[in-house]
Amino acid sequence: MHIYSPPLRDISFALYELAGLVRDSYFPESEENASEVITAVLEEAGRFAAEVLAPLSRSGDKEGVNLSEGQVHTATGFRDAYLRFSENGWNALSCPVQYGGHGLPRLLSAAVNEMWKSANHAFSLCPMLTMGAIEALSLYGTEAQKTTYLPNMVSGHWTGTMNLTEPQAGSDLAAIRTRAVPHHDGTYRLFGEKIFITWGDHDMTENIVHLVLARTPGAPTGVRGISLFVVPKYLVREDGSIGSRNDVHCVSLERKLGIHASPTCVMAYGNNEGAVGTLVGKENEGLKYMFAMMNAARFAVGLEGLAVAEAAFQKAKSYAKDRVQSRAIEGSVNPVAIIHHPDVRRMLMTMKAQIEAMRGLAYTVAAAQDHASHHPDISVRQQQQSFVDLMTPVIKGWLTETGNEIASLGLQIHGGMGYIEETGASQYFRDARITTIYEGTTGIQANDLIGRKVVLDEGKAARHLLLQMRTTLDEMTALKDSQWEECVRQLARGISSLECAIDHIVGHYKSNVQSVAASGVIFLKLLGIVSGGWIMAKAALASGKQIQAGSTDGFYRTKIETSHFYSQHFLPLAPALAEIIIHGGASVLFVSTDEF
Amino acid sequence: MHIYSPPLRDISFALYELAGLVRDSYFPESEENASEVITAVLEEAGRFAAEVLAPLSRSGDKEGVNLSEGQVHTATGFRDAYLRFSENGWNALSCPVQYGGHGLPRLLSAAVNEMWKSANHAFSLCPMLTMGAIEALSLYGTEAQKTTYLPNMVSGHWTGTMNLTEPQAGSDLAAIRTRAVPHHDGTYRLFGEKIFITWGDHDMTENIVHLVLARTPGAPTGVRGISLFVVPKYLVREDGSIGSRNDVHCVSLERKLGIHASPTCVMAYGNNEGAVGTLVGKENEGLKYMFAMMNAARFAVGLEGLAVAEAAFQKAKSYAKDRVQSRAIEGSVNPVAIIHHPDVRRMLMTMKAQIEAMRGLAYTVAAAQDHASHHPDISVRQQQQSFVDLMTPVIKGWLTETGNEIASLGLQIHGGMGYIEETGASQYFRDARITTIYEGTTGIQANDLIGRKVVLDEGKAARHLLLQMRTTLDEMTALKDSQWEECVRQLARGISSLECAIDHIVGHYKSNVQSVAASGVIFLKLLGIVSGGWIMAKAALASGKQIQAGSTDGFYRTKIETSHFYSQHFLPLAPALAEIIIHGGASVLFVSTDEF
Repeated sequence: MHIYSPPLRDISFALYELAGLVRDSYFPESEENASEVITAVLEEAGRFAAEVLAPLSRSGDKEGVNLSEGQVHTATGFRDAYLRFSENGWNALSCPVQYGGHGLPRLLSAAVNEMWKSANHAFSLCPMLTMGAIEALSLYGTEAQKTTYLPNMVSGHWTGTMNLTEPQAGSDLAAIRTRAVPHHDGTYRLFGEKIFITWGDHDMTENIVHLVLARTPGAPTGVRGISLFVVPKYLVREDGSIGSRNDVHCVSLERKLGIHASPTCVMAYGNNEGAVGTLVGKENEGLKYMFAMMNAARFAVGLEGLAVAEAAFQKAKSYAKDRVQSRAIEGSVNPVAIIHHPDVRRMLMTMKAQIEAMRGLAYTVAAAQDHASHHPDISVRQQQQSFVDLMTPVIKGWLTETGNEIASLGLQIHGGMGYIEETGASQYFRDARITTIYEGTTGIQANDLIGRKVVLDEGKAARHLLLQMRTTLDEMTALKDSQWEECVRQLARGISSLECAIDHIVGHYKSNVQSVAASGVIFLKLLGIVSGGWIMAKAALASGKQIQAGSTDGFYRTKIETSHFYSQHFLPLAPALAEIIIHGGASVLFVSTDEF
Repeated sequence: MHIYSPPLRDISFALYELAGLVRDSYFPESEENASEVITAVLEEAGRFAAEVLAPLSRSGDKEGVNLSEGQVHTATGFRDAYLRFSENGWNALSCPVQYGGHGLPRLLSAAVNEMWKSANHAFSLCPMLTMGAIEALSLYGTEAQKTTYLPNMVSGHWTGTMNLTEPQAGSDLAAIRTRAVPHHDGTYRLFGEKIFITWGDHDMTENIVHLVLARTPGAPTGVRGISLFVVPKYLVREDGSIGSRNDVHCVSLERKLGIHASPTCVMAYGNNEGAVGTLVGKENEGLKYMFAMMNAARFAVGLEGLAVAEAAFQKAKSYAKDRVQSRAIEGSVNPVAIIHHPDVRRMLMTMKAQIEAMRGLAYTVAAAQDHASHHPDISVRQQQQSFVDLMTPVIKGWLTETGNEIASLGLQIHGGMGYIEETGASQYFRDARITTIYEGTTGIQANDLIGRKVVLDEGKAARHLLLQMRTTLDEMTALKDSQWEECVRQLARGISSLECAIDHIVGHYKSNVQSVAASGVIFLKLLGIVSGGWIMAKAALASGKQIQAGSTDGFYRTKIETSHFYSQHFLPLAPALAEIIIHGGASVLFVSTDEF
């Protein structure tokens, strides 16, 4: 039975030929020789994903996790796999060098993370959350907090969590009630209940470092009164050794649709004397700090959409090649493998083309994250950061929505077998379904996209992206090659449609916020589809150059064909979506609440 | 917690004002007074669905079914509910009068079936399969078979099943291997394994009547050598009493993604002396007989798409009204119920508008089924049958694909809670997922639609539908009312797009069958969306007339607003889909099998 093969060829293409990774690139925080490191990292990560993590995905789904005597126990094999994961240094890959990390670029780490997530979605959430906590502590923690926690978190010796949600405070963090009471020794005592805490407790490491949003006494109401605290599962002694058990406990586990091997915990803080915590940064600035984690986490969840799609695609194409059923529609003596049937082929191409577009786009954004941090020119840094800000909700929203569609197609290709849990196709379908919800639903991403990323700078970042797209279009047009004619036409119309939608949103948001916001998710989808078309056009151009330069690698021919498919199957939707955005917002609000 | 409220107002509207049910209509096989009967049936069925079936849906999902000592045991409460169901005469509703049925029209039975399916999808499959078996036996059974089985099946005293699939024969029935060996007494002995047999065994009735496809010795290979047999779980004695156990057994149950309370059985025929069966009709004609069941079953599965969507919608809107989270985007002092947020409203409208379009379309097709059977004019009967034939794959394919999208939106509206199984939104998402697969995948429906229903008569039936749509369009245009302008424009463009696609398919199917077939599912979707637009335009016109005639029922105003939403959010996709169908087929096949 097929499990997972790291798609290293397409990953390398996306890294080098789309996202601009340079083989001997300067790794700002690392002194290692880049070209050797990159190849070794990708190959070793692929091997670890395929050999260690992937085999635990199905068994973890079946076994799930359990809570007994206040302790969460993970599925068989997870603890060992995690120990090997951290011992091999994977956790430290892109972490700061001063705390023991390897300081590799985010671009490379995006590729590696994609593989963890494809191989074992549930497992991958644990290091992902640790990474977010490391990010927040590195940026805003006190020296003492950094010294106490970061080396152990970077090595993966301890894991980290994000504690935001409470029963009454989901998307709306203003409603948070958890209290943090100052203690005479400068620490705080936390009291409250947090829900939906991913990997909130487990048995894979000796300690867990919780980052927790709470309110201090007298803090302002709403989001301006939220502070961030570090609350370890076990207190840490002066000498760094593990001390007494802190008053924070997992009190129950959710029974979920998917990601069964990832414990989703209800966490009780301060059921007894109060959970000991220390303040991160300043009081009432917690939301800002949490967003440092959240933006990284949103990008990472976007990668999950890509990753689950890749895994579902691999499984479906393997099945489609093996399963023989019915004669060919154009005539055949014997039944054929179902990959030969045109509708199955259409589903596979739909998966393949969108996966490659998503990968190219995600890696392009990851590269921009690196440039935004490290480019010597400040104006480049700012421009790259604007691009990252604009695209983060698109990566989160479009990749996860598309990932769900692809996981569903994967199941469909299996026919009746897809509905049987034993087959495994349904696990991707179930696992994928969380990705459009956690770290902010698609609706929340769309609000962020139009309200903060498009309207706030009056469309500047969005129009800069249009310029970049037009540069690619011009390059393709200039070839005057008849094979590109249809792609040029589709991309040109896609870009214009996107531009009309941007103009509409910028022009009407203030005067008619409700009906513009009503189209937010459709705009997010439009921006995703056209960005995907742009990336696939770049991919086709790069491949054409390779072929012209004499390459006989069939990969490039296939990439061009896949790009054609993308432009003919997805870009035609752009004018339709723009029309819905521009004319359809008002009709969302016609029917009054009472009529529902 | 909200469970299920029968949507009787919209059901009545669809029955009377869209599908043309006449209040004092002539019920061909029933002597009952129609107007009183219809109202009583709908209200009582709604009550039974809400009070008896709906409460068992969640518990049935959790408990599932189990097999012990060769006998399948259903979830708690199912047996009692089934007894009440058959005692109350629900099973007999649309069955032939001569076998104890009530002979009510299929149109009315569609409405009633929708309610069973919304309330309890898993339960509803049992009577649905019985109905299919009754249909096949009434049409093709011998007198002895009819006398022996039909009265008990019509009353619901015994249930029926369809046994088609074998491990190597899923979509491809040509590959069936089950053997039927003639016995000296005129019966047959069956040997073979059938899989995916819905309600193949259970403990709700004393007998189960299996209709089984098998091959007689020396039968031609392929589908021309398949015969249909009746194989009861318990043999029936001459006097009609239950005799000895037949050699047919459920040997295992599938663990599925959803519909957990519906047993999906692996059935072993003839593990010992052979399962005793009798031939239905003639040898080697089994496929034709089975299609009599299958077309009814395909329509019924289409209804499941509508039904699960309605149930998911009800749950989501109830949650959206209750859940308070975040301030209004246009400004509010306090957080508001999430139904107030524009994106949540858009999701709810997306659900509502498509549900109403699906219901109107499905009931219109059900009415055509009645006319095709009972209209006095043979040319009307033929025309109505052509419409039914054309639309059956659309009802099956479009309603189920849309039902899946709607169930997913329902989960999305619940946010993180939607991912927790306890909430119940995920059950609809899981249950819905089988509907695009069983009774022929969407791809199979699309092949049937373009190959047999559109191309075979050179587009005649499809173009007749275009004419009907244009009649509605002309009626709306003639009103010269500015409020309809946009709807007229959208519907006109939708119809033209559909026409272009039909022309393309009819014109290119023979010369280029692969690339035309590659767009089959997209064409099915296009035909569904434009048909939905046509139905919603009819709904708007009917509502406008009621308002003009003085009605103050808010339902009609809401219907018009919902129709506007439909035309602005779905019809814009029509030109895009037509473009993909006309230009995108070839690119599906560019990448060779080896490149996957």
